Amino acid sequence: MKYIVILLLAAFVSNAQIRKEQLDLMPWPQNINLTSGTFMLTKQFKVNITGNSDARLFIGTTNFLRRLDSRTGLFLGQEYVTKINEFPEAELLINCGRKGKVGLNEDESYQLSIVSGKITLNATNDLGALHGLETLLQLMQNNGTSFYFPAVEITDSPRFTWRGLMIDAARHFQPVDVIKRNLNAMASMKMNVFHWHLVDDQGWRIEIKKHPKLTQLASDGDYYTQEEIKNIVKYADERGIMVVPEIDIPGHASALLSVYPEIGSKQSVGMPYTVGRRSGIYDSALDPTNPKTYQLLGEIFDEVCPLFTSKYFHIGGDENNGKEWNANPAIEEFKKGNKITSNHDLQTYFNMKLIPMLKKHDKRLMGWEEIMTKDMSKDAIIHAWRGGNEGVTPGGALITAAKNGYNTILSNGYYIDLMLSVDGHYLNDPLPKNIALSPEEKARILGGEAAMWSELVTPLNIDSRIWPRTAAIAERLWSNDTITDLNSMHRRLKVISSRLEEVGVMHIRNKEVILRNITNHQDTRALNDFTNICEPLKNYKRNGGGKKYFMYSPLTLFADACTADASDAYDFNKAVNQYLENKSPENQIVVTSFFRKWIAMNNDLIALSANAPLIQPVLLMSNNLSMISKQLLLAIEEKQNIDKKALNELLEQLTIRNSADVELAVYASLKRLL
Amino acid sequence: MKYIVILLLAAFVSNAQIRKEQLDLMPWPQNINLTSGTFMLTKQFKVNITGNSDARLFIGTTNFLRRLDSRTGLFLGQEYVTKINEFPEAELLINCGRKGKVGLNEDESYQLSIVSGKITLNATNDLGALHGLETLLQLMQNNGTSFYFPAVEITDSPRFTWRGLMIDAARHFQPVDVIKRNLNAMASMKMNVFHWHLVDDQGWRIEIKKHPKLTQLASDGDYYTQEEIKNIVKYADERGIMVVPEIDIPGHASALLSVYPEIGSKQSVGMPYTVGRRSGIYDSALDPTNPKTYQLLGEIFDEVCPLFTSKYFHIGGDENNGKEWNANPAIEEFKKGNKITSNHDLQTYFNMKLIPMLKKHDKRLMGWEEIMTKDMSKDAIIHAWRGGNEGVTPGGALITAAKNGYNTILSNGYYIDLMLSVDGHYLNDPLPKNIALSPEEKARILGGEAAMWSELVTPLNIDSRIWPRTAAIAERLWSNDTITDLNSMHRRLKVISSRLEEVGVMHIRNKEVILRNITNHQDTRALNDFTNICEPLKNYKRNGGGKKYFMYSPLTLFADACTADASDAYDFNKAVNQYLENKSPENQIVVTSFFRKWIAMNNDLIALSANAPLIQPVLLMSNNLSMISKQLLLAIEEKQNIDKKALNELLEQLTIRNSADVELAVYASLKRLL
Repeated sequence: MKYIVILLLAAFVSNAQIRKEQLDLMPWPQNINLTSGTFMLTKQFKVNITGNSDARLFIGTTNFLRRLDSRTGLFLGQEYVTKINEFPEAELLINCGRKGKVGLNEDESYQLSIVSGKITLNATNDLGALHGLETLLQLMQNNGTSFYFPAVEITDSPRFTWRGLMIDAARHFQPVDVIKRNLNAMASMKMNVFHWHLVDDQGWRIEIKKHPKLTQLASDGDYYTQEEIKNIVKYADERGIMVVPEIDIPGHASALLSVYPEIGSKQSVGMPYTVGRRSGIYDSALDPTNPKTYQLLGEIFDEVCPLFTSKYFHIGGDENNGKEWNANPAIEEFKKGNKITSNHDLQTYFNMKLIPMLKKHDKRLMGWEEIMTKDMSKDAIIHAWRGGNEGVTPGGALITAAKNGYNTILSNGYYIDLMLSVDGHYLNDPLPKNIALSPEEKARILGGEAAMWSELVTPLNIDSRIWPRTAAIAERLWSNDTITDLNSMHRRLKVISSRLEEVGVMHIRNKEVILRNITNHQDTRALNDFTNICEPLKNYKRNGGGKKYFMYSPLTLFADACTADASDAYDFNKAVNQYLENKSPENQIVVTSFFRKWIAMNNDLIALSANAPLIQPVLLMSNNLSMISKQLLLAIEEKQNIDKKALNELLEQLTIRNSADVELAVYASLKRLL
Repeated sequence: MKYIVILLLAAFVSNAQIRKEQLDLMPWPQNINLTSGTFMLTKQFKVNITGNSDARLFIGTTNFLRRLDSRTGLFLGQEYVTKINEFPEAELLINCGRKGKVGLNEDESYQLSIVSGKITLNATNDLGALHGLETLLQLMQNNGTSFYFPAVEITDSPRFTWRGLMIDAARHFQPVDVIKRNLNAMASMKMNVFHWHLVDDQGWRIEIKKHPKLTQLASDGDYYTQEEIKNIVKYADERGIMVVPEIDIPGHASALLSVYPEIGSKQSVGMPYTVGRRSGIYDSALDPTNPKTYQLLGEIFDEVCPLFTSKYFHIGGDENNGKEWNANPAIEEFKKGNKITSNHDLQTYFNMKLIPMLKKHDKRLMGWEEIMTKDMSKDAIIHAWRGGNEGVTPGGALITAAKNGYNTILSNGYYIDLMLSVDGHYLNDPLPKNIALSPEEKARILGGEAAMWSELVTPLNIDSRIWPRTAAIAERLWSNDTITDLNSMHRRLKVISSRLEEVGVMHIRNKEVILRNITNHQDTRALNDFTNICEPLKNYKRNGGGKKYFMYSPLTLFADACTADASDAYDFNKAVNQYLENKSPENQIVVTSFFRKWIAMNNDLIALSANAPLIQPVLLMSNNLSMISKQLLLAIEEKQNIDKKALNELLEQLTIRNSADVELAVYASLKRLL
């Protein structure tokens, strides 16, 4: 008979009073006051909007109704919301005073009140109202037969005004549907800035009508048309999200220079630029001494700026290694003639030329922290990103920028492509309590941004790299700085992960696609079990200096099915901690059940591998783990003496890099058991 | 210990000689000659193209390389194919003489030869070469460590020139990504016509620049821009697929008339038209006596025709019930004045006015069979669709059309939205052997088209309604008419279903999404087991005359997770047949294992339902099935006397319509066991 593990992702609840800590809210609201009673959801449920509202709230409310309906199967009768005051007797009343302005420092607060039979959502403007609707969806409970909301009073507003996600659509192109489902997910986590990294060494992704060659020659056919960009900006605006485009210059310019080598800094014209096919930092840089450089950039900005409604334009500015500038005598000459003593200052010279080009379109320049030099305009926004990997104090540029009078945002600590645990991202506060800044300086720290670089992500695996972990970053940027309990965060993140499917995120379903490919469409359960204790190599170790994968290589392997924060590893590590504290039979059985699972898993993987070449690379690890598990079972259950040295050797073998490109996330706990 | 059922979807093969009937080809090629030996696939694999080729084959070959790479994880080194004769020493040589013309009656043949170390693909033009690459991908085999192709000689070409799929994007809008992944799937099944049903009572889905109100007022924001349409036409052309647009007139016009009621046939202007929100046939019809009708249609055609490269334009013409015409005295007057004696003839009058409007853009008119009247131009293509449901001989119009001198295609028997078994579609031949037609008449039967009407499909469930079953229709239209073995078709269809994931089809992954929603993100296995013996109500019974669901209702329920041809039901029915023929212990155990599975399933569903209201509607059926299973176990295994009458009553209860909107696909076999 089949044995079912019933995963009570949402804890069973009767209509009895729920406790605050049982709510699955993320980001956690500023004030929650649970009162008594419940609001029962029925087929008759309707919404009425009053105040000054327009399309954004109508669309948002319609989407809210559809999501409520798809989750409950109630076939609600209210169709498309298109006007105010349509159903004055409705059970959900939304009132907001005016249309919000998507951008920084707008009031995003809301007040939500639920009592039996009536829900009231008030907000200064529609942006706050949209946030309130997301909270309402997260509040929904159910028993075995009905859906309902607990009676509650919530007042809420964000801590930071910049709560962003950056997606690199240049290295691996991300089609419109990928962007849209991520915008949906961002809105559900109350994030409000989508930073769109649109060009890099590996591709030029924006249609430029005056320069069609840019996409003809440097996009491999993968780019956004201007219409698509405008459409996405509108789609984001409907969800309260500002879109900040990035054109990364003067470095990261191989794609641009492959089309217009004449504005590159290479000394010899006999060495053409080509579109990058691998990861890593390229030397290619625009020539800041060439007037043609600025003419072309001006023409590009003239087309790109009007596509976006945001006041901010990101010009990149990172990782220009200066090699081409140093090697070019004419550029060296120019520096001398203009009393420019460093490449950094030369880059500032370049950046300052961009400011008026952007100002013409009412845009403010922002850039990665390297743009911050003594002559840089105070009007620029500094995007802090570097840390230990780059040999500097993590996020140090954020503090320096705030002290030097710049508005600034933090991405160091939010690099989700590093595949590190969500715990670190969650506890990474742009404004820690003990920070030595004046109130004015603190006010310049606008918030932060998760950064999804795309060397190793395709439309198939990108969702599982961004979600659900970015929800924890969203909470850091929205909620009170006292909300730091990791256990609570992990518990809620599990539920949020499920809920993200509702808005179209594909992290769960696409993992199954990868597993089916690896198993050659055999049963995926054993392989799935293994993904739950393995994590992709961290800190850019997977792609060995950018040499292993090409940008056009599909990513459909075991490491692509694995994620950071492997779920069983999290549970096993907890179980080992408890067992080592107290070797009770109950604690022992939790630990040993994992060993049994892994022994069975290994047997299954061996059986499956007879018809699935892609399983071969993981067999070495699963075999070792199975042998270790057997020995530990003997030691723990039978109190047998085992050969600890041999076992340690087996365990250490698990740390040797192998072709599966993952690390065993239970390694440390196993080591502690030995 | 966990018990794993290893689903050997692809039978295990060593490198030993494979037999022809083990190949998983679909549609089955005209000639296959397996020789001895194999071609081993390695990381060094490359392709070279010679002859006269251009972008279409370059893109197709690049896509081929990516699919090969994603399936094998080999990280092939060849990047984007952009020119001929790049790697003369490559292992795969493709040669084709010229660029093919997407459309009817083009040569689509190819010859594929595989020997150890060398693959040769020859075709008259690139369309045939693309088909050959699909066959090659289907030929791939593997053992436990490698991927390889069997040595083989194949010559192949299609039986019919029109192998189509229609998608209704009007009733439920289907975004660009849904269309694109279906085009990928069509190409993989060598289908060559995408018929795009773009407008209907429930929505106007094409941007018309001169008449922006059409999408502003009658699309709920869900429509294709002209740029998107051009982009899809190009995408289809790259895959050898012609796109035939349909603007359905003069009936099915509620959306159009909600914007321009003045060209409607309603007698009183005080009864406005509205966009349809439900299924069913609407009365609304354009006024064929009003010159403004033709002026507007002309303006629409002037914008829509140039977006498409196809020579054919579908004007619908179906299901105009004539009620508005009959009720309008001015129209009755017009008929008398023009000696038009029937509404049918009035519609011909209307249709004939469209012909020059289309001819202006070099398009030929086609329409559903109702357009065929004695005065209709012989230049029109007749699309046969009606059958028993409409009280006529199934597909009779196809024969009549061929006899009357019209080119014609068949959709009767290919209505995949009826949720009938694939067997019927598969055996439905547009040109059965015994057909009483002359060779000239036969030649007018161009082929057929699967029809995916979208009353009950959304982007979430549409894939599982179209695929894999449409692959069987593709085989009917491509392969020799002697290829009719149902067992072989079912065996191959299972493999093809898995392979369709490779091109982006979401039928498998999106089913899991629906199951997770129903179970409230608990374990989905029991519910999945139940979907494998239940099928959605057939023949439009699900939506009770169009009254149950609105067009904006999400479809996320049990019936949406179920499909026609429930897989376990297929296996159970087979097992019962075998058992009734021979009550051997082996045959008995196959049958009784199903009963055990269903008893366990029911227990699991009851447990899950405590936290999942959406499971409630299926419990009645699963409970009954469990009780029946228990009784049958007693009868079969313990030879106990059971109360057959009570059991029969239980069984008959299963046929009563309940809120789960499905039927139990094992009902007939259970009845036979009693």
